[in-house]
Amino acid sequence: MSKMIVLGAGVMGSAFCFPPADGGQEVHLVGTPLDIEIMKELKRSRIHPKLKMELPKQVQFYDFEELGNIISDLPDLIVIGVSSAGVDWALELLGTLLKQPVPLLMLTKGLTVTEQGLSILPVYAAERLKQMGAGVFSVGAVGGPCIAGELAARRETRVTFGSPDAKQFPWLDAMFRSNYYHINFTTDLTGLELCAAMKNFYALGVGVPSGQLAVAETAANAAQMHNPSAGLFTEAVREMGLLVDFMKGDQTNVYGLAGVGDLYVTCQAGRNSRMGRLLGEGMLYCEAKNEKMRDETVEGAELALAIGPHLERLFDNGTLDETQFPLTRAIIRSICYNQRMEIPWASF
Amino acid sequence: MSKMIVLGAGVMGSAFCFPPADGGQEVHLVGTPLDIEIMKELKRSRIHPKLKMELPKQVQFYDFEELGNIISDLPDLIVIGVSSAGVDWALELLGTLLKQPVPLLMLTKGLTVTEQGLSILPVYAAERLKQMGAGVFSVGAVGGPCIAGELAARRETRVTFGSPDAKQFPWLDAMFRSNYYHINFTTDLTGLELCAAMKNFYALGVGVPSGQLAVAETAANAAQMHNPSAGLFTEAVREMGLLVDFMKGDQTNVYGLAGVGDLYVTCQAGRNSRMGRLLGEGMLYCEAKNEKMRDETVEGAELALAIGPHLERLFDNGTLDETQFPLTRAIIRSICYNQRMEIPWASF
Repeated sequence: MSKMIVLGAGVMGSAFCFPPADGGQEVHLVGTPLDIEIMKELKRSRIHPKLKMELPKQVQFYDFEELGNIISDLPDLIVIGVSSAGVDWALELLGTLLKQPVPLLMLTKGLTVTEQGLSILPVYAAERLKQMGAGVFSVGAVGGPCIAGELAARRETRVTFGSPDAKQFPWLDAMFRSNYYHINFTTDLTGLELCAAMKNFYALGVGVPSGQLAVAETAANAAQMHNPSAGLFTEAVREMGLLVDFMKGDQTNVYGLAGVGDLYVTCQAGRNSRMGRLLGEGMLYCEAKNEKMRDETVEGAELALAIGPHLERLFDNGTLDETQFPLTRAIIRSICYNQRMEIPWASF
Repeated sequence: MSKMIVLGAGVMGSAFCFPPADGGQEVHLVGTPLDIEIMKELKRSRIHPKLKMELPKQVQFYDFEELGNIISDLPDLIVIGVSSAGVDWALELLGTLLKQPVPLLMLTKGLTVTEQGLSILPVYAAERLKQMGAGVFSVGAVGGPCIAGELAARRETRVTFGSPDAKQFPWLDAMFRSNYYHINFTTDLTGLELCAAMKNFYALGVGVPSGQLAVAETAANAAQMHNPSAGLFTEAVREMGLLVDFMKGDQTNVYGLAGVGDLYVTCQAGRNSRMGRLLGEGMLYCEAKNEKMRDETVEGAELALAIGPHLERLFDNGTLDETQFPLTRAIIRSICYNQRMEIPWASF
């Protein structure tokens, strides 16, 4: 039996407890300062108020103030399941409390721009912890099409675990595999994480035609707009592949669960698609965000704001060939510069 | 101005007339013996009874008995837009009437098993015409996510035209490109056609979870089954890629419009998805076909019946590694051997 800590009791962190807990592992779920109400309810009833599912008996609940105590008895693995915005907070806390390195696994998705350029979160996390003198951490990550509520309902789910260190795969597999949770492994953490983050960004584009349909004149035959969506889906896969190439990842993850698989599920439902739809209806990003999605985090838009200006610099100085990224540029213009969303069909 | 004949006035053949007709080309749409009612209505009102759209003025209508007359003034291109079942009829007719070779473009999708093994339709067509002494024909094809009714409504549509002869691309582009019809080109006809056919087959599998959801106990949190669908979508792309590899096509089309793009649109709607859903509900194929879809052509199932036994032989004699095709085999078992559909999650 392995002992693991999952930091972050939002829907994804909490859902991620199900496979290992069902497999008999000892799982400690630790709430962040944003999870206080959730933890109160979990401790009272074991039912997660957002997942609307009862957590398995193997899961024990803690507030972040208790992390020091449970971390002192060194866990086999620490899973970071906080929101993108909470990553620095989580690393700070771990850097302070951990007396020796423990393998980390990141559920949190995102990309950051550092002095070295675009960086995936596991690399960023390892560097931050090293800077804090906490030692050298092996940081892996999880990608693939996984809606938290479905995982918690034990729906068949396929994911890819990534780590630069293939020696970790057998014990990660033993710890997490279940009859409903099916894991592939990759050493290409760059490809995995880039796809996992960018699928939210590109879903903003793939969602546009459904919004255009809502405001377009109805066709004589009531035609929908599946052709345009599928055309954009394909372009998203292509441009995602070029970005992975630029970041020196390989293409396997682009065409696998973290790429086409997760993009597929993200385009079926969720907040990024919904924002894309609003942009397709003709709203400006700021308008749509403030009037329709004020209290919701639209990860793809947050990511565009975080990396869009950096990508634009790479286009401007010729590091990236702008003619190869028409969809990427259309999304950046719409989100970062609040321009009307225009799909450049003739450029594809 | 180019002159083209489109043989087959079903929804796809007729919709395919829109881009060249809008571009001012001279388009002759020729009905088959199955299109008699359609042609009557087109000649009367120009409105296609199934597309429910008025065809552009540039399109002229003919019955197949008139083909000899219009073919004698040699067209620049003949488009074959009949159903899979009508291909032999169409080739017979063209072989008899054509006095010299004309470039052909196939809209009809499918694969056949000949003495040489699995064959794509353009290759089969070229060979049949040669056998009939009609000369050497250049046969191209069209793939990509294109619902006919949407094309006829002039929705933005992206497709790939394939031909082994790249010299044809500029004039094909000039003939078909429009402000809503965006064409890429490939010389990899094998990859293009294999994807175009197999996407219907794999959509049967991707549709299964939505049927399972319909009959499963509702989860406490009302979870859907997007995770399983996306997991199967990814597996479909992987196995399609392996088949293309086996047939000596390259991977570009798998990850392009004819592969992921067309699979995406096929999984959103249509008869193949619907059959997959019925199988997911627990019906046997024959039951589902007879009771629920008796008068409908389910292309993916027709294809399974046409090539399934051949693929099984390739698995049995080790030409194809059966462990690499768990989804393909599950679909074949379900359609060709009328077994209950079981998704082999642990084999992925």
